[in-house]
Amino acid sequence: MKLCIFDDNRIGLVLGQDIVDITNAFASSFRPAWPYPKYDWVIKNFEGVRPRIEEAVEIGPRIPLAGVRLRSPVANPGKIIAAPINYKDHIAEANNDPGINHGKTFTDLSKLGVFLKANSSVIGCHEDIRIPIADRRTDHEVELAVVIGREAKKVSRDNALDFVFGYCIGLDMTVRGPELPDFRKSADTFSVLGPWIVTADEISDPNSLDLSIRVNGQLRQESNTKYLIYNVQRLIEYASAMYTLYPGDVIMTGTPAGVSPVTYGDLLEASISGIGTMTARVAAD
Amino acid sequence: MKLCIFDDNRIGLVLGQDIVDITNAFASSFRPAWPYPKYDWVIKNFEGVRPRIEEAVEIGPRIPLAGVRLRSPVANPGKIIAAPINYKDHIAEANNDPGINHGKTFTDLSKLGVFLKANSSVIGCHEDIRIPIADRRTDHEVELAVVIGREAKKVSRDNALDFVFGYCIGLDMTVRGPELPDFRKSADTFSVLGPWIVTADEISDPNSLDLSIRVNGQLRQESNTKYLIYNVQRLIEYASAMYTLYPGDVIMTGTPAGVSPVTYGDLLEASISGIGTMTARVAAD
Repeated sequence: MKLCIFDDNRIGLVLGQDIVDITNAFASSFRPAWPYPKYDWVIKNFEGVRPRIEEAVEIGPRIPLAGVRLRSPVANPGKIIAAPINYKDHIAEANNDPGINHGKTFTDLSKLGVFLKANSSVIGCHEDIRIPIADRRTDHEVELAVVIGREAKKVSRDNALDFVFGYCIGLDMTVRGPELPDFRKSADTFSVLGPWIVTADEISDPNSLDLSIRVNGQLRQESNTKYLIYNVQRLIEYASAMYTLYPGDVIMTGTPAGVSPVTYGDLLEASISGIGTMTARVAAD
Repeated sequence: MKLCIFDDNRIGLVLGQDIVDITNAFASSFRPAWPYPKYDWVIKNFEGVRPRIEEAVEIGPRIPLAGVRLRSPVANPGKIIAAPINYKDHIAEANNDPGINHGKTFTDLSKLGVFLKANSSVIGCHEDIRIPIADRRTDHEVELAVVIGREAKKVSRDNALDFVFGYCIGLDMTVRGPELPDFRKSADTFSVLGPWIVTADEISDPNSLDLSIRVNGQLRQESNTKYLIYNVQRLIEYASAMYTLYPGDVIMTGTPAGVSPVTYGDLLEASISGIGTMTARVAAD
């Protein structure tokens, strides 16, 4: 299934060129108000209301996908974890470009760990990306994003995929500079998630997906998740060894070579096989 | 005023040795359920219900402070921002101790920026700190924590204090190692906030507060926030230049010299003048 959030926070399933509104399937799910839970409410409740979702697919109103405004398919990620330097060709380009490495030498992920992106940086693909600091280089990075479905602590890579709810496309927008990545990658609008989450049952192997991004029609990044150094299972094992993962937590798995600067008005078109394509725009000045 | 959250998420004001339960003062405040807002609900609504809070102080039930379980005074921080290397004496000790620097040389904050701590790492002082990786060094770091009160974007240091709701004590627990700080400092239970928030009107200058921590009765860190390299105003200016700060976002301002390892069962007693003292325990093995 392809789960999306659209318009005024409606919950939907994408079926071909339409969306079925399944918001009412969650009507009887307890909606905790303050204090808010550590998990995302939709992801947490999805399995429990699956029969009602299936019913909604039969009878729910259909809306043309082309007419809606897609929001982040995870409304409230508890945390957004991201893998640095997780493709060899990106490590090579980073080490060769002072505009990326700012004097650092990158070796392997275990020397950096994974980092966090601010929850306040999340947008859907129909909201504009904004460049935060005009005189600093801002790059696109296309990534496979893993959405956690079950609480996970000290999980082994052997059963790590059991904890995955699904997958979406992530744009890990990045200001280049000397600072720590979690600072440079947490500007407002810098974590684009979308266009929807494909549930894990539809992706037999997340480590064999083509991913690419075009900027104004020009191909910039093109790779396959088989080149991930820490694959999806290993990233879940690694992150959950340090902290608990909750339903709706997102792991952005890292970006391949081809990162490059974006500027005002650019159109970004990101694709991952088995998920789809999303188009996001950098706001005009 | 001293705002706290206690027991089963009751909202309270600390008055001497008692707590007045002011939960009902918030009864008519709209409690957004999913999607959850980017702000903390209590901090966001505090000013608006101040008359009812003052009424509650007169008539509300009083409970002995000694009998309650204090939770984090910010129930739902949107993000926890932390300043690395913000006291000269800590930079010196870090550069002199390979167990802290792991081969890096620390210069100044502008080379690192500020970093994030996972929201899932937050606890109150009456919950146990847990050591995540038995064979890695885990240190205490005592810090002044600033709680944001109003949405802040590209704020100038000149009026930055207008955006502060109040101050509390923060323990920035840290696993030592080569990884990025946001990974090593985001383990579950690694952001202890407490014992309560002293509202900004009661702290005339946040940059002149004594802070200290004792471990099992032994003094380990003792300094004053006048030694902050980036003071509170400048940290707000710096962080808000990259991303929007929301009510309830927390800025941990950095730690002075004296960081040292903790082990199972240790008792940590942290104090900041004008705020108070909180006692936290490291869980037994």
